[in-house]
Amino acid sequence: MSNRSALKSYKQGEGWWKTEISQIEKNRVNIRGYNMEELIGNVSYSQMLALLLTGSILTEKKAKLFESVLVAGADHGPRAPSIAASRMAATCGISFNSAVATGINLLGDSHGGATEKGMALFYETMTEVEETGQTINEVIDNKLENLLERKEKIPGIGHQLHDDDPRVHRLYKLAKPLVEEGEISGDYLKIAEQFRKSLAGKKDRPITMNIDGVAAAIQCELGLPAEAAKGIFALSRGMGITAHAFEELQQGALVKGPGPNNEEFIQYTGVKNRKLEDKGEVRNYKL
Amino acid sequence: MSNRSALKSYKQGEGWWKTEISQIEKNRVNIRGYNMEELIGNVSYSQMLALLLTGSILTEKKAKLFESVLVAGADHGPRAPSIAASRMAATCGISFNSAVATGINLLGDSHGGATEKGMALFYETMTEVEETGQTINEVIDNKLENLLERKEKIPGIGHQLHDDDPRVHRLYKLAKPLVEEGEISGDYLKIAEQFRKSLAGKKDRPITMNIDGVAAAIQCELGLPAEAAKGIFALSRGMGITAHAFEELQQGALVKGPGPNNEEFIQYTGVKNRKLEDKGEVRNYKL
Amino acid sequence: MSNRSALKSYKQGEGWWKTEISQIEKNRVNIRGYNMEELIGNVSYSQMLALLLTGSILTEKKAKLFESVLVAGADHGPRAPSIAASRMAATCGISFNSAVATGINLLGDSHGGATEKGMALFYETMTEVEETGQTINEVIDNKLENLLERKEKIPGIGHQLHDDDPRVHRLYKLAKPLVEEGEISGDYLKIAEQFRKSLAGKKDRPITMNIDGVAAAIQCELGLPAEAAKGIFALSRGMGITAHAFEELQQGALVKGPGPNNEEFIQYTGVKNRKLEDKGEVRNYKL
Amino acid sequence: MSNRSALKSYKQGEGWWKTEISQIEKNRVNIRGYNMEELIGNVSYSQMLALLLTGSILTEKKAKLFESVLVAGADHGPRAPSIAASRMAATCGISFNSAVATGINLLGDSHGGATEKGMALFYETMTEVEETGQTINEVIDNKLENLLERKEKIPGIGHQLHDDDPRVHRLYKLAKPLVEEGEISGDYLKIAEQFRKSLAGKKDRPITMNIDGVAAAIQCELGLPAEAAKGIFALSRGMGITAHAFEELQQGALVKGPGPNNEEFIQYTGVKNRKLEDKGEVRNYKL
Repeated sequence: MSNRSALKSYKQGEGWWKTEISQIEKNRVNIRGYNMEELIGNVSYSQMLALLLTGSILTEKKAKLFESVLVAGADHGPRAPSIAASRMAATCGISFNSAVATGINLLGDSHGGATEKGMALFYETMTEVEETGQTINEVIDNKLENLLERKEKIPGIGHQLHDDDPRVHRLYKLAKPLVEEGEISGDYLKIAEQFRKSLAGKKDRPITMNIDGVAAAIQCELGLPAEAAKGIFALSRGMGITAHAFEELQQGALVKGPGPNNEEFIQYTGVKNRKLEDKGEVRNYKL
Repeated sequence: MSNRSALKSYKQGEGWWKTEISQIEKNRVNIRGYNMEELIGNVSYSQMLALLLTGSILTEKKAKLFESVLVAGADHGPRAPSIAASRMAATCGISFNSAVATGINLLGDSHGGATEKGMALFYETMTEVEETGQTINEVIDNKLENLLERKEKIPGIGHQLHDDDPRVHRLYKLAKPLVEEGEISGDYLKIAEQFRKSLAGKKDRPITMNIDGVAAAIQCELGLPAEAAKGIFALSRGMGITAHAFEELQQGALVKGPGPNNEEFIQYTGVKNRKLEDKGEVRNYKL
Repeated sequence: MSNRSALKSYKQGEGWWKTEISQIEKNRVNIRGYNMEELIGNVSYSQMLALLLTGSILTEKKAKLFESVLVAGADHGPRAPSIAASRMAATCGISFNSAVATGINLLGDSHGGATEKGMALFYETMTEVEETGQTINEVIDNKLENLLERKEKIPGIGHQLHDDDPRVHRLYKLAKPLVEEGEISGDYLKIAEQFRKSLAGKKDRPITMNIDGVAAAIQCELGLPAEAAKGIFALSRGMGITAHAFEELQQGALVKGPGPNNEEFIQYTGVKNRKLEDKGEVRNYKL
Repeated sequence: MSNRSALKSYKQGEGWWKTEISQIEKNRVNIRGYNMEELIGNVSYSQMLALLLTGSILTEKKAKLFESVLVAGADHGPRAPSIAASRMAATCGISFNSAVATGINLLGDSHGGATEKGMALFYETMTEVEETGQTINEVIDNKLENLLERKEKIPGIGHQLHDDDPRVHRLYKLAKPLVEEGEISGDYLKIAEQFRKSLAGKKDRPITMNIDGVAAAIQCELGLPAEAAKGIFALSRGMGITAHAFEELQQGALVKGPGPNNEEFIQYTGVKNRKLEDKGEVRNYKL
């Protein structure tokens, strides 16, 4: 980030909005220099997304692997706050896209956000390996110890519900031939797995890599920027958010809260029954 | 919509959240009855989206046509309020996904929303043709006249900037072989084009179909529900929203408003320089 | 609404952003012509809000009545989707203001939105009374019959949980002396109550006015515009949304969904266990 | 934050949603133990907000000072991204409250967020004074040096446009009698001013305290929690956001972007005119 003042740049003749992404003129839409008509029908969703983000077109094999990551994260049902919030929104009489936006607004640091942190950690690990000459395992052991000491979470490892997430194995299997053919290096897949293994060793119990972890490893293999991860996940989980909000809309309930109004579900634990007292603190309207 | 009370259903033993979309259990994620591991790597983004929304898997040819629609709507640069708002959001120090949500929140009735209205109109047209025995052109002329009389917009026809949108021709060209092979009927593509032609005739000047119109026609061909259109577009334009917010984040400006603070850009047209008067209306704190 | 093109106006020398609300210059902030320093400490929250919206300062008595409406709608606990969604958002690792925005995003047509519809109905009723010379009761009976015939809801009348909402009586009591002193006309308070009474008569059972209905009546008395009602309610319920999101943040749970994962709470009602079949519809990546 | 599992607590008999804020039953709404009917008409907006957040009712004098802070931050015109984004949203055909939410979504760390950081810094400064026995000025000099060394911003000091913000002086003046009467300690007002003075001294040029800084100082005087600051500001600036979105709605423009489409306003700086090449990377649909 430059932290250069937008106003200063503008006064020096730059556009207020500077973009390398798209050029729109009358009857002409260009994306990263490509004519939109040429892209339509020739590039897939995942290629288009990567092109918009980075300016480069992924090879078809890489694009399919990226697409598989997008598909893998598409839904986790209404127990996920993002899904439930968009379903509730759909019952409140707002524009349907706003219900979708409600769900996406929730995909922050704690809910899907581990992919970004995982990518940063894996990229950092690789850089340290290259710069220090240490082995991957040495660097990882070191990093892991530091994280555990600071009582931080290891991003991409562990899950509330699953202890052996089937989506992870499938994605590793899909990535394998690409490593063998040299399409991708395989380094980041190794790094992610080593973090999992080391942690399981230290904790002395089985621990699963989660969907954020495998997404992080693959997105590093594809050279995507870590800081874009929350946006990418928004378009992956966005599918489920859209479908669930749509289903709720079809069911037609109005103003549907998070659950039934049973007493044990919402529990009031505060002060009971007090009165305003005249200790000078209360205005009396005498209306 | 049933408008059945969620609470009543729950008391009769139904789940508070009822879904046909996904079933999540320990180490098992099923989508519309399919095992997630099987879907990953075997279905594309557009197939997954249609599966989540409708329960059916589009054939590969249909899926590619749908994907082409998603790609075609991906970006229209920072002059679009959705794109600009997400870029501004990216300079305000919020979670990146929230910047994406900001853009998607804006894709309402007037901004991308014409696809939903177009789909409703085209489906309605088809139903009337089937039910009344009138020709497509008769039904359309009738509908068009009614819309113009009520001074309503014809959804999917016309554009602020373009008068011959190149994306539309490309999508029609991609759809053509599918019609010839019987993959899709072609009826809705005809209906959309006839609305455009009739309107151009009535106005006696060239008028373009826009991206919303062709998206509506194709999504009708694929049997997708009209009410889901705003969510689908959120995932299409969402690509551009994500990329632009990310580019702005990289540029590093902070708290970037819509434009430079030139006098002619923000114009104050209200009352100038007045004073609070004591006509009993103003509280005096005497702090 | 003018529907005049912003671009055309700009080319004729108008600002892109035209505003009568505020004028900001170096070391000077003016609101509706008043110096901000003069407003600070001299006008209350509700006076400031009305000033920003309409350009006029409410008398102190009117302002307190308006403030009472804002206070009355401040909270309805986590069974309200807006409150629950903001609490869930607070557990997802996003910026705190984004959790607040999540809740406010849900205050649409069905969730708090009845105030706008109520205001429109009450203003319309008054206009008809003035224009036709009919009595208030005649106009209301007529309108009510039309609404019931079209199976529409009567905005502001009835409640899921309460059948005699205590907030309504309190606000009517606070408004009474203002009517007696001629500060407000009392016409809209009568109109709202007559709608309730007429409906109760037709249904032959007791029916309560709800908080939206009394808010609508009072906001009409104050001459506020109906179309601003959803924004006003956002700042009223916004208090509860902020407090609940904050409480959840303090409790420290992470990624908290709508409820516990009991089987009866989320119910899967879709297709079980099917396999992708090769009917030409599935791509095989052969990765 | 406890980071205690919500599920574990629920299994031990606690409510899924635990709250000390409100208790809602049929025909009964209690807030922090007070009957809602008693609060309506007796407490002001700022008292209600503080009560919801903290459980205590501010004295009338404190409440008016808090209200003055809310009024002071209410608007800064369309050059503020939050205001502009909500105005753009209002032209896109979404629910009005969603336009308000769009603006509030942007009030993050960089846009209004300095109040939270200022409060944390001022509270921390006070604690250090109490714990170490150093003078306020010693602690501040020390802290300031550390911040400048790490090239961090001093929260609440400095402004892009203003160099002597008139709102700040007014709020200091309103607070003064409360210090003299012992209603508030005045310590945090001193701390904030000393940070400003010290920084101006080190930079050897005049520097203004900004609205975030004075809001932070006063909210510390009132004992409000720092982490709630972004929510509080949402309800302050929310007034301006609501009014501007409403004004835009009345103007009636549709899909209004950030500015006119002049060339110098949006500048494309990317690759121009390239073609897809067949390097194995592009799928050919052959549709």
